[in-house]
Amino acid sequence: MADDGRADLAAMLAPLVRALVAAERPILDEHGLTMWGYSVLLALAEQPTRTQAALAESIGADKTRIIGVLDDLQERGLLQRDPDPNDRRVRVLSLTEDGRRVCGAAQADIRKMEETLLARLPAADRRGFLRALRVLSTLPRGEIIGRVRTPDP
Amino acid sequence: MADDGRADLAAMLAPLVRALVAAERPILDEHGLTMWGYSVLLALAEQPTRTQAALAESIGADKTRIIGVLDDLQERGLLQRDPDPNDRRVRVLSLTEDGRRVCGAAQADIRKMEETLLARLPAADRRGFLRALRVLSTLPRGEIIGRVRTPDP
Repeated sequence: MADDGRADLAAMLAPLVRALVAAERPILDEHGLTMWGYSVLLALAEQPTRTQAALAESIGADKTRIIGVLDDLQERGLLQRDPDPNDRRVRVLSLTEDGRRVCGAAQADIRKMEETLLARLPAADRRGFLRALRVLSTLPRGEIIGRVRTPDP
Repeated sequence: MADDGRADLAAMLAPLVRALVAAERPILDEHGLTMWGYSVLLALAEQPTRTQAALAESIGADKTRIIGVLDDLQERGLLQRDPDPNDRRVRVLSLTEDGRRVCGAAQADIRKMEETLLARLPAADRRGFLRALRVLSTLPRGEIIGRVRTPDP
């Protein structure tokens, strides 16, 4: 631990992420979703239609890896694949009404778990944490890595 | 995204961790350390002596996986292995003076990268973020997972 008494950010964040993911698993199980399935639904809920390749990239998955996930979600009527009007060889994905409902219900339960966890923090720290996280998590990755070499004066 | 306009915590934290780890790599390279090597040095800097098994567990590594890492650090004079006074079949690890210096220098450079990143946040959010992180990262894992099933009333 450094002089200011805190551990490295990655060293503090990584176990928290692992614990959150572990806490999400039983919740997703209850909704019949895998972690990848939930990631797909969430991505489509945020940006309605896109190709399989674009979707895979946005969730950090291998394109071939998620084909089975997409097949399963489609069979269960949670998403649909339609020909791209601009290029009929390409198919675009979108959520069905059921898909939107299942994704929302799972996310609501995850949110409950998170709020119980966040309730352990003083209100001001909780707000600061969420505001900071929103800024830091949406920085382009190069903004973090690039600054190592060329910090502000 | 849920009604309150934020993404799931894990979905915000995971890319941040990946970006931080990617930003640490070139810094560790400059200090001649791998990510595992740095993890070992950090763990020993925090809790001076321990067995290989205890060390491996504390950094989330497989016991056999880190043997090569330990060999390398020892050859470079950054750590030493001594027989456990309580059980001479067991060897305990500790940092050498050089090991402490290299670890501290690498951590200082990582801290600079982190501070540049954190400087993008308003001061109050930065303090709240770090305070929250300290609390959340040190919760026993069961405290997070357990609360999924038995939330507070």
